[in-house]
Amino acid sequence: MVIATGTLLLALPVASETGQPVKIVDALFTATSATCVTGLITVDTPTTYSLFGEIVIMALIQTGGLGFMTLSTLVALLLGKRITLKERLVMQEALNQLTVEGVVRLSRYVLFFTFLTEGLGALLLGLRFSRDMPPGQAFYFGVFHAVSAFCNAGFSLFSANLMDYRGDLLVNLVITALIILGGLGFSVVADVYTKRSWQRLSLHSKIVIRTTMWLIIIGTLMFLALEYTNSKSLAPLPLGEKVLASYFQAVTPRTAGFNTLNIGDLRPVTLLLIIILMFIGASPGSTGGGIKTSTFTTIAVAVWSIIQGKCDIEIFGRRLPRGTVLKALAVASVSLLLVVTVTGIMLVTEQEEMEIILFEVVSAFGTVGLSAGLTPQLTVAGKLLITATMYSGRVGPLTLAFAIAQRLGRQGIKHYPEEGVIIG
Amino acid sequence: MVIATGTLLLALPVASETGQPVKIVDALFTATSATCVTGLITVDTPTTYSLFGEIVIMALIQTGGLGFMTLSTLVALLLGKRITLKERLVMQEALNQLTVEGVVRLSRYVLFFTFLTEGLGALLLGLRFSRDMPPGQAFYFGVFHAVSAFCNAGFSLFSANLMDYRGDLLVNLVITALIILGGLGFSVVADVYTKRSWQRLSLHSKIVIRTTMWLIIIGTLMFLALEYTNSKSLAPLPLGEKVLASYFQAVTPRTAGFNTLNIGDLRPVTLLLIIILMFIGASPGSTGGGIKTSTFTTIAVAVWSIIQGKCDIEIFGRRLPRGTVLKALAVASVSLLLVVTVTGIMLVTEQEEMEIILFEVVSAFGTVGLSAGLTPQLTVAGKLLITATMYSGRVGPLTLAFAIAQRLGRQGIKHYPEEGVIIG
Ligand SMILES: [K+]
Ligand SMILES: [K+]
Repeated sequence: MVIATGTLLLALPVASETGQPVKIVDALFTATSATCVTGLITVDTPTTYSLFGEIVIMALIQTGGLGFMTLSTLVALLLGKRITLKERLVMQEALNQLTVEGVVRLSRYVLFFTFLTEGLGALLLGLRFSRDMPPGQAFYFGVFHAVSAFCNAGFSLFSANLMDYRGDLLVNLVITALIILGGLGFSVVADVYTKRSWQRLSLHSKIVIRTTMWLIIIGTLMFLALEYTNSKSLAPLPLGEKVLASYFQAVTPRTAGFNTLNIGDLRPVTLLLIIILMFIGASPGSTGGGIKTSTFTTIAVAVWSIIQGKCDIEIFGRRLPRGTVLKALAVASVSLLLVVTVTGIMLVTEQEEMEIILFEVVSAFGTVGLSAGLTPQLTVAGKLLITATMYSGRVGPLTLAFAIAQRLGRQGIKHYPEEGVIIG
Repeated sequence: MVIATGTLLLALPVASETGQPVKIVDALFTATSATCVTGLITVDTPTTYSLFGEIVIMALIQTGGLGFMTLSTLVALLLGKRITLKERLVMQEALNQLTVEGVVRLSRYVLFFTFLTEGLGALLLGLRFSRDMPPGQAFYFGVFHAVSAFCNAGFSLFSANLMDYRGDLLVNLVITALIILGGLGFSVVADVYTKRSWQRLSLHSKIVIRTTMWLIIIGTLMFLALEYTNSKSLAPLPLGEKVLASYFQAVTPRTAGFNTLNIGDLRPVTLLLIIILMFIGASPGSTGGGIKTSTFTTIAVAVWSIIQGKCDIEIFGRRLPRGTVLKALAVASVSLLLVVTVTGIMLVTEQEEMEIILFEVVSAFGTVGLSAGLTPQLTVAGKLLITATMYSGRVGPLTLAFAIAQRLGRQGIKHYPEEGVIIG
């Protein structure tokens, strides 16, 4: 319904820069991309849409981002741990407790946190942009980009995205801070706010924060190493700008979709790095997509434990429940299957190398919105596939969580005898 | 030591077709490839090596195949189930029971089964080949190809591999039967031989047989569908030959490496299908590589169970132990990490598309030996990487199993408190 309203509004003549109404299919694509905070575009935002159109887009991003964040936080709180029998009993209490007032209160906290963060970001960005344009426009640009960054949407009012601010420390830091805060998930932010001590944080918060930190550090260093001598990207830049651009490009695939370098100019191996980062994505209960940081770390820790021959999967002095590991395995496997299947089909429908197709598919799956250049040349079948992948990537993990939770309890308690199988 | 001896013998002038000794590096590569039953070649076997050289190669394949089969069967029997505490206790008994005589007896069974199967295959192939060449040569060719097929080596005395026998029903059926029997693993064959009833088979045997069957059926149908209209592969062939070639090409990636069609002429999507089949590979305790059929099915069943919200991972009326699922997760994840990492490095060292590189890396990892055309043009770094990957793919899963088992029991019994994490 939000998408339908958005499409209608964007198709009005008043939403268009030229007065000539935007094509309905492009209006639909833009509305969907904005509401799903993906950021893929078929038409250039600033030159196609008027001020009115841009504000509609911003409203759609904000609605989509907030709605998804609240909804996914709720689902995460309600169903996140609902796997083991013991937890299922605890959960039923929680379900009884979480009444309409509870949801309203949660939504109010989410709203407050969102507007506070976006407001601060908008103010800083506005001050910076006012050096390049009139103050009114500067603060409007500040608000738009703050909303787009916090909601991990990746829409920009600059036709060159943020490439012109590649070397600007303030813009880089503010945008990445908004992306990271939006991508941590509300429950983590709330946990940090209430506990104010690393030791007392929940295991989930510790994993999310530590994973996010290491992904950014390792991503930055690898990007820097791989692109250092690439004359089309980092080579011509001074050292500080090299580091800053590497940092920005390491943050943005998970899952903001802004860019300060041209993605199409990067080396194949760097595209592979970005594909991996996009696949991992942001954290649960956030505006971002992907399989999620907690899923990735759960699998990594499980694999490391089993290689060491440990029966327990341990991290930060806690044991991960069996259900958590299995759920992570399910989410990662289904996601991989989806990405590989869509890539396979698109190898038939599109005339392009596998790497470029894979990049586009993972970008759509993680609602990242980065493109190595394929989006504009997609065939009709390709457009439909990418749209379906975007949608699956957006609602998939949530639906999966719901489905798992709903079927729990329905099964009988019959246990089959156990028997081992030879692996590897 | 086997490889060193083989290298020396192959470097002798008498091993060369021309009398001019084969280069030591090529002799080493051939000896390694034969002993590891990979089948990648830098020089053409029939035109480079003399009869003596070819027999050395066959002996290396037989030694490598038998050694690996016996060793991996032993490891599988000893360590396959050695994860849970209960099983660990059972295992210690088994370890006490399995004495030197036990190993000798097992080896004798393996030897008997191998020579019986290869002998039968050689006889049938020899009869067929005698229509095209003198009887002596025909039976020698029969023995060589039977050994190469059963050991999943993929070496051929025909420069065009088996492409000339693409439409020959007998050669296709005998070779694929040898490949499949060699790839099932000795424990499964022994189980079928002693039980002679599907119901009484072990869970492991059921999973391996059913998975192998479905992978072949689905692989054949998908290959047929994807290549049906490709004028470079299936399109010019009559229908029967289309099906036969599809069947052969569906069997061979797991992990024989023979081919009756030119792999480089296949469509990109078909290469992706073959990459997936090569990654899955053969079954534990066999001459084949890959993550193994049982690993693949364990993960698939686990994912399907968790999506249905089941706490137990059930298949064929049995519950899979937690340790089995975790071990499968470990093997698959480490393998995926290896393949992606090597592909990433080779994207830097080689000037080739990602798909071709990925194909080569997975082929080496699974000791398959198929090539989409990259092997001859590899850089030195690329050759070393592929060699290292072959080696890792060959000894990796076994080493992993050993490592896991050895560290079991060393750990303390301290259990951390359990705490859930939000996934997806
Ligand atoms: K995005
Ligand atoms: K092989």
